[in-house]
Amino acid sequence: MAHKSDIEIARAATKQPIQEVGARLGIPSEALLPFGHDKAKISQDFINAQKDREDGKLILVTAVNPTPAGEGKTTTTVGLGDGLNAIGRKAAICIREASLGPCFGMKGGAAGGGYAQVIPMEDINLHFTGDFHAITAAHNLLAAMIDNHIHWGNKLGIDARRVAWRRVLDMNDRALRQVVHSLGGVGNGYPRESGFDITVASEVMAILCLANDLEDLQARLGGIIVAYTRDRKPIYCRDLKADGAMTVLLKDAMQPNLVQTLENNPAFVHGGPFANIAHGCNSVAATRTALKLADYVVTEAGFGADLGAEKFFDIKCRKAGLSPDAVVIVATVRAMKMNGGVGKDDLGRENVEAVEKGCANLGRHIENVKSFGVPAVVAINHFVTDTEAEIQAVKDHVEWMGSEAIVCRHWAQGSAGITELAERVAEIADSGMAQFSPLYPDDMPLFQKIETIARRIYRADEVLADKKVRDQLRKWEAEGFGDLPICMAKTQYSFSTDPNLRGAPDGHSVPVREVRLSAGAGFIVVICGEIMTMPGLPREPAAEQIMLNDAGEIEGLF
Amino acid sequence: MAHKSDIEIARAATKQPIQEVGARLGIPSEALLPFGHDKAKISQDFINAQKDREDGKLILVTAVNPTPAGEGKTTTTVGLGDGLNAIGRKAAICIREASLGPCFGMKGGAAGGGYAQVIPMEDINLHFTGDFHAITAAHNLLAAMIDNHIHWGNKLGIDARRVAWRRVLDMNDRALRQVVHSLGGVGNGYPRESGFDITVASEVMAILCLANDLEDLQARLGGIIVAYTRDRKPIYCRDLKADGAMTVLLKDAMQPNLVQTLENNPAFVHGGPFANIAHGCNSVAATRTALKLADYVVTEAGFGADLGAEKFFDIKCRKAGLSPDAVVIVATVRAMKMNGGVGKDDLGRENVEAVEKGCANLGRHIENVKSFGVPAVVAINHFVTDTEAEIQAVKDHVEWMGSEAIVCRHWAQGSAGITELAERVAEIADSGMAQFSPLYPDDMPLFQKIETIARRIYRADEVLADKKVRDQLRKWEAEGFGDLPICMAKTQYSFSTDPNLRGAPDGHSVPVREVRLSAGAGFIVVICGEIMTMPGLPREPAAEQIMLNDAGEIEGLF
Repeated sequence: MAHKSDIEIARAATKQPIQEVGARLGIPSEALLPFGHDKAKISQDFINAQKDREDGKLILVTAVNPTPAGEGKTTTTVGLGDGLNAIGRKAAICIREASLGPCFGMKGGAAGGGYAQVIPMEDINLHFTGDFHAITAAHNLLAAMIDNHIHWGNKLGIDARRVAWRRVLDMNDRALRQVVHSLGGVGNGYPRESGFDITVASEVMAILCLANDLEDLQARLGGIIVAYTRDRKPIYCRDLKADGAMTVLLKDAMQPNLVQTLENNPAFVHGGPFANIAHGCNSVAATRTALKLADYVVTEAGFGADLGAEKFFDIKCRKAGLSPDAVVIVATVRAMKMNGGVGKDDLGRENVEAVEKGCANLGRHIENVKSFGVPAVVAINHFVTDTEAEIQAVKDHVEWMGSEAIVCRHWAQGSAGITELAERVAEIADSGMAQFSPLYPDDMPLFQKIETIARRIYRADEVLADKKVRDQLRKWEAEGFGDLPICMAKTQYSFSTDPNLRGAPDGHSVPVREVRLSAGAGFIVVICGEIMTMPGLPREPAAEQIMLNDAGEIEGLF
Repeated sequence: MAHKSDIEIARAATKQPIQEVGARLGIPSEALLPFGHDKAKISQDFINAQKDREDGKLILVTAVNPTPAGEGKTTTTVGLGDGLNAIGRKAAICIREASLGPCFGMKGGAAGGGYAQVIPMEDINLHFTGDFHAITAAHNLLAAMIDNHIHWGNKLGIDARRVAWRRVLDMNDRALRQVVHSLGGVGNGYPRESGFDITVASEVMAILCLANDLEDLQARLGGIIVAYTRDRKPIYCRDLKADGAMTVLLKDAMQPNLVQTLENNPAFVHGGPFANIAHGCNSVAATRTALKLADYVVTEAGFGADLGAEKFFDIKCRKAGLSPDAVVIVATVRAMKMNGGVGKDDLGRENVEAVEKGCANLGRHIENVKSFGVPAVVAINHFVTDTEAEIQAVKDHVEWMGSEAIVCRHWAQGSAGITELAERVAEIADSGMAQFSPLYPDDMPLFQKIETIARRIYRADEVLADKKVRDQLRKWEAEGFGDLPICMAKTQYSFSTDPNLRGAPDGHSVPVREVRLSAGAGFIVVICGEIMTMPGLPREPAAEQIMLNDAGEIEGLF
């Protein structure tokens, strides 16, 4: 069975009607808005009616810094959900939706792998329930209304050189990164420079994922800063009266999506903000709903724990009032080896020393996670080439750190391979050990918040920022944005801002290139290094191989 | 009851679960892919299994040339469907999907009106089942792959000055009509001029609406001409290997959508190509499916009969092998008055003389429709201000033309107001009187096809086209495109190319400005006058008034 591809495994699965999956969470079928027979949205009315119920336990799955070897964070999230169900707990998982554009670039979907997947994976990787299309439409409506306002006389006095709102498409299209539009004469408006980002980079995506309800959604959309006047006064989305229509476009998208794992356990797949310029977690709406309906909710955060878990704690949990009960840090022997200096081609050979060396990366993440007051357990996502000695090296290191590491074989075995982790995680979550608190208080000055993250999470010595950046932060404080959390945008491959610095570097500097205010989403983006918000297609795009086969099945997507 | 708004009427309707609506057409619930509880797609497998069934009768609803007074073509299509069901016939309607973008510009949805509507109208006017979003994605994937190909070395030798494929968005955004993209340096590709059209103007839309099945869809997509080499050799979509992935993106969108009328009768709402640069009819897939499942299928074509019906006959019916059994031409007393020279502000006053004069427009359409061998009956869509004398004037004129006109009150009364028309249409359709044949044979030279339409339908004396246009047509004939039908793009307000020339002008000239080859869709677009393929928003966009009210209902959309 180990030789089947992900898609073969997914296609061989016996899917349950989505109504049956929902029923296990107590969702009546009239509260499920079906999309085909295997996907549904959960109606807002039903969600509203659950608000006085007690919450289940919240478990975050995060990981070491990503390496080309792959860590299997989503796979472990799915596996742990199945594992908890297998040991008799009522558990649900919450993960992000996949972006359409990248599917046509490099191969690879985003729905887990092996015997730990969510299905229907084709749909999840393509249009799914249309949420991202709705976000694209809402985002671009606002863009059209900005240029339309300028065209018809510009009553608000928008400085056309200072329009901050770009357009988006869910497509890898480098040609659109930088454009001049409104060419062709009077009827087409005032020419200006702008560009397109991929939809997942839209502030609308971040807002949808952080909004408590439709009212909050509209308030946040209204608070988007779209441009500035000549004298630098911000122009808000609500000044253009675009917030109502955008909310209408997003009304259905706000309702969480329910699908199932290969083992027919409930999976919420909803929202998917970038993990660099945004916070990289699935929606608050989905997580909250899952917590009302399940006793254990397993969710994940983007990238490694330095970026993903920190944002999960300091942005999502802080703002949504969530209190995580346990954290699982996913590590692999291969990733430890790469962190220990081994190249990708040598991963197949046993190298206990490199594993031991690379464990410094894992150890740092354990420390960091614990500093938020949440107990952490390490999941060693087992790979066929791992040797006993290498696995033991990881276990020893983790134990030495005062934590514990459990080998998981969910990729090859499904829930049967992850019951030990499931038992332990349930025990920790039930124990009430967690004493979650965010890293910094709301009222700390913005620059000091950045320094706190850099020093305590990245273990840097200093944050480098020129006067312009510091002045900008002070200006925002004066304007009332000082209580916002920080959203760091740096490389995911290292604790530092240098992607080649693996392991557990310290004493480095964190240079801040730029700061941006996402006033609607409610965070300050701090950019350290180049961040690509519109990917391109590779020389030979995966799209060339994607097609329907004679059986009408999709080939080449995964 | 006449004082209720369309949306109030729609919201007061008692919807049936879509499974019950489908059951009346014999569709088992597992063959319906639900989108919520009131919308569904019909599965391709089920459709394939019906192919040996006998077809029902096909009834086209078309109209006089549109005027600002409004004719109510969709309303009459919906009403006639309900009327046929009310007199005990098994009938379904087939109409187009609404485009999202224009909803945010001017007020006004596209789902009928009064007591003849399809529901859920909010959904139909917004994202519906995501078909247009899928078309947008497929179209823009091809665009991205073109620029990506050029960026990575341009093996096919695409002349970047001769890229014919633009991008699309389902948004009224004049700023995107003309852009320069790929700016910003090496990493972003080669800068060139291009632009965006609205999604309904995409050739992908026309293809989806004409394709017989997924195989045909892919073949047609592959046949799209995307660019030319320096020596003017066409580059096809299939040369870029984009056709497979585009088909995958459109797989679900190809399946027709089923909703219901206010009276719970089945309504297919699928596809919506522009009626100028494309053929303006709902999908062949929907019409064919409806014909297999219902005894009577009422469908509509875009604009007036000179454009819409002609294209329905010469493009859709010819290519899909459909044979219409009856035509209903919708006219209103008000439209006749305007065609008789009355201004919009004077429509409320009785003016029999103007009605008589304006009937020349209606008479011309009757003659034209009959020239395709299909019997025509006129539906006078009743308006509260119509007087008996005015109605009688229309009836007299139509009778004098050897046809008949029946007053319909479906807008105010639903099916009860249109049973007379329904009885008569059923009688005509059952009679087997129709002897449909297209206007011109496939093998007629292209320019002669244009002349035939201009002379026999528009009653022009001549077609004016410079040498470049004639040479281009001859070149396409030499390249094997000579058997394609013509898709005229001219003003919808007149038989002529002058929008102010109401009534029944003759002896005019038809100047051809440009010809375009839609090789994938399979027609030659002949452009006479300015055709806008990307609308703009007005000074005060409807979007400013669109919002959710306290009950969570959408305000301002209609």
